[in-house]
Amino acid sequence: MNGPKVGIIMGSDSDLNVMREAAKVLEEFGVPYEITIVSAHRTPERMYEYAKSARERGIEVIIAGAGGAAHLPGMTASLTTLPVIGVPVKGSSLDGLDSLLSIVQMPRGVPVATVAINNAQNAGLLAVRILSIKYPELAEKLERYRQEMYEKVLEKAKEVEEGFGKIGG
Amino acid sequence: MNGPKVGIIMGSDSDLNVMREAAKVLEEFGVPYEITIVSAHRTPERMYEYAKSARERGIEVIIAGAGGAAHLPGMTASLTTLPVIGVPVKGSSLDGLDSLLSIVQMPRGVPVATVAINNAQNAGLLAVRILSIKYPELAEKLERYRQEMYEKVLEKAKEVEEGFGKIGG
Amino acid sequence: MNGPKVGIIMGSDSDLNVMREAAKVLEEFGVPYEITIVSAHRTPERMYEYAKSARERGIEVIIAGAGGAAHLPGMTASLTTLPVIGVPVKGSSLDGLDSLLSIVQMPRGVPVATVAINNAQNAGLLAVRILSIKYPELAEKLERYRQEMYEKVLEKAKEVEEGFGKIGG
Amino acid sequence: MNGPKVGIIMGSDSDLNVMREAAKVLEEFGVPYEITIVSAHRTPERMYEYAKSARERGIEVIIAGAGGAAHLPGMTASLTTLPVIGVPVKGSSLDGLDSLLSIVQMPRGVPVATVAINNAQNAGLLAVRILSIKYPELAEKLERYRQEMYEKVLEKAKEVEEGFGKIGG
Amino acid sequence: MNGPKVGIIMGSDSDLNVMREAAKVLEEFGVPYEITIVSAHRTPERMYEYAKSARERGIEVIIAGAGGAAHLPGMTASLTTLPVIGVPVKGSSLDGLDSLLSIVQMPRGVPVATVAINNAQNAGLLAVRILSIKYPELAEKLERYRQEMYEKVLEKAKEVEEGFGKIGG
Amino acid sequence: MNGPKVGIIMGSDSDLNVMREAAKVLEEFGVPYEITIVSAHRTPERMYEYAKSARERGIEVIIAGAGGAAHLPGMTASLTTLPVIGVPVKGSSLDGLDSLLSIVQMPRGVPVATVAINNAQNAGLLAVRILSIKYPELAEKLERYRQEMYEKVLEKAKEVEEGFGKIGG
Amino acid sequence: MNGPKVGIIMGSDSDLNVMREAAKVLEEFGVPYEITIVSAHRTPERMYEYAKSARERGIEVIIAGAGGAAHLPGMTASLTTLPVIGVPVKGSSLDGLDSLLSIVQMPRGVPVATVAINNAQNAGLLAVRILSIKYPELAEKLERYRQEMYEKVLEKAKEVEEGFGKIGG
Amino acid sequence: MNGPKVGIIMGSDSDLNVMREAAKVLEEFGVPYEITIVSAHRTPERMYEYAKSARERGIEVIIAGAGGAAHLPGMTASLTTLPVIGVPVKGSSLDGLDSLLSIVQMPRGVPVATVAINNAQNAGLLAVRILSIKYPELAEKLERYRQEMYEKVLEKAKEVEEGFGKIGG
Repeated sequence: MNGPKVGIIMGSDSDLNVMREAAKVLEEFGVPYEITIVSAHRTPERMYEYAKSARERGIEVIIAGAGGAAHLPGMTASLTTLPVIGVPVKGSSLDGLDSLLSIVQMPRGVPVATVAINNAQNAGLLAVRILSIKYPELAEKLERYRQEMYEKVLEKAKEVEEGFGKIGG
Repeated sequence: MNGPKVGIIMGSDSDLNVMREAAKVLEEFGVPYEITIVSAHRTPERMYEYAKSARERGIEVIIAGAGGAAHLPGMTASLTTLPVIGVPVKGSSLDGLDSLLSIVQMPRGVPVATVAINNAQNAGLLAVRILSIKYPELAEKLERYRQEMYEKVLEKAKEVEEGFGKIGG
Repeated sequence: MNGPKVGIIMGSDSDLNVMREAAKVLEEFGVPYEITIVSAHRTPERMYEYAKSARERGIEVIIAGAGGAAHLPGMTASLTTLPVIGVPVKGSSLDGLDSLLSIVQMPRGVPVATVAINNAQNAGLLAVRILSIKYPELAEKLERYRQEMYEKVLEKAKEVEEGFGKIGG
Repeated sequence: MNGPKVGIIMGSDSDLNVMREAAKVLEEFGVPYEITIVSAHRTPERMYEYAKSARERGIEVIIAGAGGAAHLPGMTASLTTLPVIGVPVKGSSLDGLDSLLSIVQMPRGVPVATVAINNAQNAGLLAVRILSIKYPELAEKLERYRQEMYEKVLEKAKEVEEGFGKIGG
Repeated sequence: MNGPKVGIIMGSDSDLNVMREAAKVLEEFGVPYEITIVSAHRTPERMYEYAKSARERGIEVIIAGAGGAAHLPGMTASLTTLPVIGVPVKGSSLDGLDSLLSIVQMPRGVPVATVAINNAQNAGLLAVRILSIKYPELAEKLERYRQEMYEKVLEKAKEVEEGFGKIGG
Repeated sequence: MNGPKVGIIMGSDSDLNVMREAAKVLEEFGVPYEITIVSAHRTPERMYEYAKSARERGIEVIIAGAGGAAHLPGMTASLTTLPVIGVPVKGSSLDGLDSLLSIVQMPRGVPVATVAINNAQNAGLLAVRILSIKYPELAEKLERYRQEMYEKVLEKAKEVEEGFGKIGG
Repeated sequence: MNGPKVGIIMGSDSDLNVMREAAKVLEEFGVPYEITIVSAHRTPERMYEYAKSARERGIEVIIAGAGGAAHLPGMTASLTTLPVIGVPVKGSSLDGLDSLLSIVQMPRGVPVATVAINNAQNAGLLAVRILSIKYPELAEKLERYRQEMYEKVLEKAKEVEEGFGKIGG
Repeated sequence: MNGPKVGIIMGSDSDLNVMREAAKVLEEFGVPYEITIVSAHRTPERMYEYAKSARERGIEVIIAGAGGAAHLPGMTASLTTLPVIGVPVKGSSLDGLDSLLSIVQMPRGVPVATVAINNAQNAGLLAVRILSIKYPELAEKLERYRQEMYEKVLEKAKEVEEGFGKIGG
């Protein structure tokens, strides 16, 4: 994998705390990425250029996060044929429902792969799953990741079981 | 008023049944307008051109209707400095809530003047109110319109009162 | 522009923290305005007088903010033919949904130009956009404002890009 | 009881199908009433007069029904000191939630006694309950009404029980 | 007015902080009341006795507050023919929507006069409005209360106007 | 199993179309049941008697269905120590959300086992699962039921697979 | 009762603070239980084994808590014929509505006995109610528990009544 | 592309009307696929086998549609490392909100690429976008599809413009 394969964009620097989780996952999996701010509403021309040039620049998946009337993921998807993953970022009212609906309810013809509210980690993992159909080493890493999650749960399970001891017995 | 002052756009021809109400109001008030389809997601470039050229073409208010993840009003507002009125069009699920939130919950910097779900008539009236600050004859027509609404209610009220007669007396 | 062109009203002094953002924007754009408290429910007569006299006093746009069962914007719109902008103010329950629906879902005949929950800044900007169809200097200022937003995003984008450096590369 | 004791008002004649249930209940209980159309948005002045004069005209309870951004009950309550009962009428979108919140979420100082969506029958019964604290014959009638409801349920219960017969035994 | 005219009940002592506002209003208006805890779910028999005996004990209005699946107001209304006012108390999830719907959406035959979420002050005021049809001195006091609200708004309005001074002029 | 083990009650005969699915399931599993109408709001005394006597009459599970401000399941649960299953019945507005929240959001101390909106079939199956801890033959029948569901899906799967044939291959 | 009769499982150790309330109730009633972590999404195989072996291991009721897209209760119910109680755990957005709907809206054929959001105490009590049809001593304990709740309310009621003293009299 | 690359699964044959749109798109793009019914709740073992074997059988993307408490997409995603696209299917209540939240709100670690309610066409398109990073001919076809959408909108736009003719001019 030469050059960034995933482009992470967000509507505002206030989304960074949420969106950096996507970057973390990609680093964990050794997937090169680029990250920047692209606002659908405040820099529409920049969004055009970004989305239009992404595929030829070698990007294979775009992750776009935004809040409120979140148009960045959908508009990006309308300007590229790459898979676009949308992360609804929770704003100061309506508990993220506005971002979620603005991103997921796309009309026929232009899909956005939407993940859970504020869950940029899953956006990163989804990007890795998508790339894994082309880069077999990622499929292996995903399998290992899955195994590790499994084991972490087992550990936590043991702790809980021991914490309650024979109380209920 | 030479040339169209209001541009009515909608995301799909399926929105026409709702959006023609805006056109009707403008005709009633003698406001020249243009009407067409501009899809944020299926024709983003067309949307750019439309919005970017609107002011210089003499348009003074844009009315934009769309459903679902409705990005047309907000994106148009980000590409022009004209006032943009958004009409949330009810789709086949969620009863219009998705369109409403996608249009009204715009971030700081780019406002959309949102009206009620499917209420393109009010979008037309809002456009007339806006134009009335520049074209005094419209202020007068609005006052007359208001008076007529008043009288229509009085007539209906009389009918209801008579319909119930002395029943309750 | 002689005398206030925009009237900012709100239902209670507890709305002031939200609504002062509208005033700030107007000052930034050099638009004269007036600001006061007018409660639909506690001072209905005052609301009547305010709305009824607004146009002849030279006001060209009214911005009205209110929370809960927010009737101020809609009632004001029913008493004047000026464009009325409604700001849903978030109360202590339901996360602003009640204010939003009470303001935006106006019946046919009486439109309110609704902006996002608590987003009085956008109400101010919408007022400037409306006035810009009559006062060309405001159109220029809006264009400059747009440009500045663009540049601020570029700066922030640079910071983010540099912050992540070559991490993903 | 001389002259109408209850005033039934509604925002539009399209609310009549819902609101006539209130009238029916009052007739059943022999409570004199008046009924008419008063629109908060299309006839605000008429609403003022109606509400302001209600108590001195002998009205003791007002029932107000409206849909969408339903301001009639709350504004009426702000213009009179009589008890005002609000009936949220379901409109063509949002399943009545907008009317309900616009009526029930009144700010401190001005209460509206809200009943269920489209349930004007209960508005009528609530009016009778209120009047019953002054007119003892109504208390008796309410007790009888309660007894009749009880018996109707018993009858229906019998039918259901017999319908299923010994099937389950 | 001899003996308590209003009975204030609530489902749990955790509702007291909300419900004491109702008591305060009644004291302000000099309306004698009683206040206690009656839980629909934990003391159903007590609720029966309370509701069934209320009218003969001289109570004329019942105010009932509860949270979550709030059954107290509706069940009380089913056990008495007095007017029952319901106060939805906001719980730890769903922002009060569950309490509101559990109280307001009563079936045909048994009305509850519902006020806004957590707004026990309005429940108190509604009780006073109801009693005012029988006790004329309360009508006068309500008129004075209305006047005082009006004046308080005017004062606050002046403060706001002066605070912004000539800034906008 | 002598005598009815499950009591099916509903608030109104209009709930019968939904609730008969519970009865059907019980018949399918050979579980004796009784079925009748008990309205929390229109026959509160009957509800008391029903719930209070249920256990001693040999009933082991109660299934209660109701719509709107659905108090029947919760109130029944407060009057018995038997497990009570609640079926939210969809009414004419709010799409069943009001019934669901009124039934499921019970306060600490009094649980209702809530199933999906209008899903009385699952209420019947849940009753059988509960009884199966005491009556081992029901556990076997449930296992067979599970197997049959499995096979029905396999059949349907085959039909779909064949319907699409080699189209996609 | 030899060996654990109730299995408490949860999707993550972050659910423990909510779910331990279920354990507390079971201890209070002397019902032996086991408690551990089983994640539907991170340990699906473990969930299979847990659910498939539960009945033969002597478990008679399963309590499963999870948040967000909460699949643990429903999937467990699909893998066993035991009664499964679902506890919706409130996550960081949407106020628990997502967990509630993911658990309660099960399709025909596979019921989950859903309790209120975060209300694991009621899940424990529901388990006891279910077990009480087989273990009569639990029925007695439930009756005593009910009595104690009653008395606690009476005490609190007295405190409130005395706190307000003769204020309202 | 030898053998099916996309696996389309759905929880019930009642989902077929919605889900066949995904198949149609894949045929249009010449992407081989397989389609069948796999129910998370009624055939959990089948779901395990399906998901576990998918990658080695050559499947590269899974599209899973389900309604209500829709667990199929999320559970499938937990059992494979392939990208899984979830289609929320609207059921008979809550207008699809339950399916949407049950699919999109996945916990950290297991992503589902969620599309709009009932929008299986977009699920198909998203699958094609994902495959296009590996199969360049699909990228070209997507570009052509995009172009065709553009042109269809232009045609419709012309029709609308001509339909309104010079009416507004």
